[in-house]
Amino acid sequence: MTPAKITPSNRPEQAADRTGQPAKGPDRPGLGPGQTGQGLDQSTLPPGQSGPHASQSAQPSGPPGREATQPAAVPEQPASAAAGVAAAPEAQRDGRGAGLLARLSRWLERDHLPDPQSVRTLYLASLTDSAANRLARQWAERYLAAAPDERRSLLAGLVLAGAELEPRGDQGERLFRRLYAQSDRLALMVALRADMLRWRNQVAGLSLLEQELAGLLSNWFDVGMLELHPINWDSPASLLERLIQYEAVHEIRSWQDMRRRVAADRRCYAFFHPRMRDTPLIFVEVALAEQMGAGVQELLDPARPVDALGKARWAIFYSISNTQPGLRGISFGNFLLQRVIEQLQAELPQLKFFATLSPIPGFAAWLEKQGGPAISGLLVGKAEQQAAQGDAAAGKTWVVRLRAAARLQRNDAERRSGLRLAAHYLQALRNGNPLDPVARFHLGNGARIERLNWAADLSPKGLEQSCGMMVNYLYEPEHLDENRARLAAGKPRVSRGVQWL
Amino acid sequence: MTPAKITPSNRPEQAADRTGQPAKGPDRPGLGPGQTGQGLDQSTLPPGQSGPHASQSAQPSGPPGREATQPAAVPEQPASAAAGVAAAPEAQRDGRGAGLLARLSRWLERDHLPDPQSVRTLYLASLTDSAANRLARQWAERYLAAAPDERRSLLAGLVLAGAELEPRGDQGERLFRRLYAQSDRLALMVALRADMLRWRNQVAGLSLLEQELAGLLSNWFDVGMLELHPINWDSPASLLERLIQYEAVHEIRSWQDMRRRVAADRRCYAFFHPRMRDTPLIFVEVALAEQMGAGVQELLDPARPVDALGKARWAIFYSISNTQPGLRGISFGNFLLQRVIEQLQAELPQLKFFATLSPIPGFAAWLEKQGGPAISGLLVGKAEQQAAQGDAAAGKTWVVRLRAAARLQRNDAERRSGLRLAAHYLQALRNGNPLDPVARFHLGNGARIERLNWAADLSPKGLEQSCGMMVNYLYEPEHLDENRARLAAGKPRVSRGVQWL
Repeated sequence: MTPAKITPSNRPEQAADRTGQPAKGPDRPGLGPGQTGQGLDQSTLPPGQSGPHASQSAQPSGPPGREATQPAAVPEQPASAAAGVAAAPEAQRDGRGAGLLARLSRWLERDHLPDPQSVRTLYLASLTDSAANRLARQWAERYLAAAPDERRSLLAGLVLAGAELEPRGDQGERLFRRLYAQSDRLALMVALRADMLRWRNQVAGLSLLEQELAGLLSNWFDVGMLELHPINWDSPASLLERLIQYEAVHEIRSWQDMRRRVAADRRCYAFFHPRMRDTPLIFVEVALAEQMGAGVQELLDPARPVDALGKARWAIFYSISNTQPGLRGISFGNFLLQRVIEQLQAELPQLKFFATLSPIPGFAAWLEKQGGPAISGLLVGKAEQQAAQGDAAAGKTWVVRLRAAARLQRNDAERRSGLRLAAHYLQALRNGNPLDPVARFHLGNGARIERLNWAADLSPKGLEQSCGMMVNYLYEPEHLDENRARLAAGKPRVSRGVQWL
Repeated sequence: MTPAKITPSNRPEQAADRTGQPAKGPDRPGLGPGQTGQGLDQSTLPPGQSGPHASQSAQPSGPPGREATQPAAVPEQPASAAAGVAAAPEAQRDGRGAGLLARLSRWLERDHLPDPQSVRTLYLASLTDSAANRLARQWAERYLAAAPDERRSLLAGLVLAGAELEPRGDQGERLFRRLYAQSDRLALMVALRADMLRWRNQVAGLSLLEQELAGLLSNWFDVGMLELHPINWDSPASLLERLIQYEAVHEIRSWQDMRRRVAADRRCYAFFHPRMRDTPLIFVEVALAEQMGAGVQELLDPARPVDALGKARWAIFYSISNTQPGLRGISFGNFLLQRVIEQLQAELPQLKFFATLSPIPGFAAWLEKQGGPAISGLLVGKAEQQAAQGDAAAGKTWVVRLRAAARLQRNDAERRSGLRLAAHYLQALRNGNPLDPVARFHLGNGARIERLNWAADLSPKGLEQSCGMMVNYLYEPEHLDENRARLAAGKPRVSRGVQWL
């Protein structure tokens, strides 16, 4: 039998050839160096993204990093007009009609974007379809290199191409699986969701895509998938630099500051995903000490002498930062603390107590909204109570007074009233959950409110948000379940010291 | 303000302490050494599990490895009786009632298994619940150390504890997320599914759990999550030993044989999951050669001289093996070949053609069932056709004749009839899919049937399953989509050489 004659064939045209990028090998960890990676960093990892705190909150947190640094690159009108501003369902259906399509066509042409018909194959073709996969690679390369307004246009193009898929089954998931498999970059998937969260109110229909991606991310970032690693002065400088960039609670001001935070009496742990090895997803900074920490400035003083570990009985979690806005709502902060406590118990059996030293970020904003009748009962001194009773703006007045008193470190009646107001606020619930986002996190984990600390954070942010106060949440591993049950019953667990304030 | 007095607390009792096992650190890759890992290997990774072929098939594949080697340890009655043999829904509902419960209670007591009430917390408690997580660790440790019958009992206990969760939401997923997070072993999750597939017809209700776990595994093992790595003679011997163990198509007989398979004119690639680093999930063996391979014995001959790579134009995929029964139905074989072709094109631009040398595992079984009228038209020679026409057992006759002719390497009319019968079989579809499991895999990937090879695999298995014939499937990267479309239209793509047989 003769073998059939075979025409010598060209190598398949692949996105990797066309873009001049080498094919992505399996060993390439996370993002490579160079401009593409840089672009991703800038847009996905805005510095100053706040901690588990912000990620628990329903509000979008501050202006996205990249737009803030590149305002000129983000003209608001063209993209949002083309993609259609979020509107009532009727308007949306109209928006999918001729008018929007015409505008979008012009805009696709202007930006040389792939046409909706081709983009639709990203949703529909089988995951091994070569043509669709080539397009997926091109799309991913382009997205990674794009400025924000082009990214928004590319996302709007995805929405448009997917709009007519009805009934909508798993096509959205297929799109994202394809993009992940073909780009070989989990970081891209996280960046996509961050961008979708940012623009979902501007680009009609983006929310659906965002939710489909969130479902996949919650599996891809399942806590079992994460690896806990210590970070110390022996860690790569590039990694420490990322901590400096991501630290959301107490800014790291210098390399000297960084070095003190990983000194012998400190620990730092982060969760990593094995497919994003160079990016800490969430990290916690721990001080090991003889006493429960009462003030953060002394902890953060780079000149503070290093404590002997032999006397350490307390592990103080003084900063927890989420780094990925694209993973909002996919919580692993609670697992992080659980794993870190186990790790510390194994390494340093002399440690007996585990607590936080935490801000009360919602306190001042809450107090400002309180009228006299709501707070007068909490104030110390008959005269103060009577003065507040008739004052509709009593909350505002007290915010000003507390800040001033904290700044001067006055230990008088204002201090006691301030602590009582804060204790009341920390125990306040809405729909069964603590009002304060940080309290929501720690009480939800089963910690208890252990102690309030006056004039404990005199940084501008500390004074602004918490009137300078801080709180310790105590983690007693054997009581977490019970405390959580109490919270569920509407009674957050509080120490006697705080009860008796 | 005085801090509240804190009673020094004991360290939480953890499963890790109780079992005398060290707490599992995050860096511990996959399974540790020792008896526990050993137990897992034996029961999850039966040698002789066949390749992508078998995983495409709906039939359970052969007897599980461990049971085959330890028949005495697997008394059939007690566990299956206790857990209730699969039955009609009514019977199942009865089975959940008093009778089953009583039997199960005795059995739980006998085996000192956790009671259903506790086990239910694995489904219901929050993922941070300490008590439930402690139980999950104990359960996982016990499972890993258990013999098959105890494993089956533990699984039946899960089913029973989950039986009354109605309506059933995400509790099943929560159970498995908890077991994964607390055991920190993805390999355990794969082992669980393998065991569930094995026993789902014996333990009523196990199928539901199996499907819930499969949904999670398909995300955890999403192809984007996998890493392609080459395997060669520099790879750890423990890894090469696993290949020897897992090779499903052409047994590796010795270390000399293994060494030849990773010599300079060969390549081997495997997909790995970053959380199961020491386990190849699927691997492919490639021979680089001047010609398309026609017989496997010469390829496999350890004494065959190593070819010069300069003249190599062909990459021949001669063996693909899935290693994890627990990942059945979660296909990544097609992605493996796609990625390997790209890798080879980048490394060795002189390669022009990519083809397989594959068995036809369903051929003999298919032919045996054919009567004369069905096959007579395919036979060469009027006399043969007429003889077959009236013979209801013509298929059986021809299987015997073809095996004998192949064994003797006779190149006569039997050979031509055999090739035509095989070509016909390979193109036969059922519900739009090729009958033959290996054809289903490669044609489904967009390859075409390139050449049939007579007396190409004279091993006992080759003669038994394929009457000694083999087939080359040709992968032309630029034609895969088109070929797949043809298959979808009911016309699998075939070379002219095969058309003209």
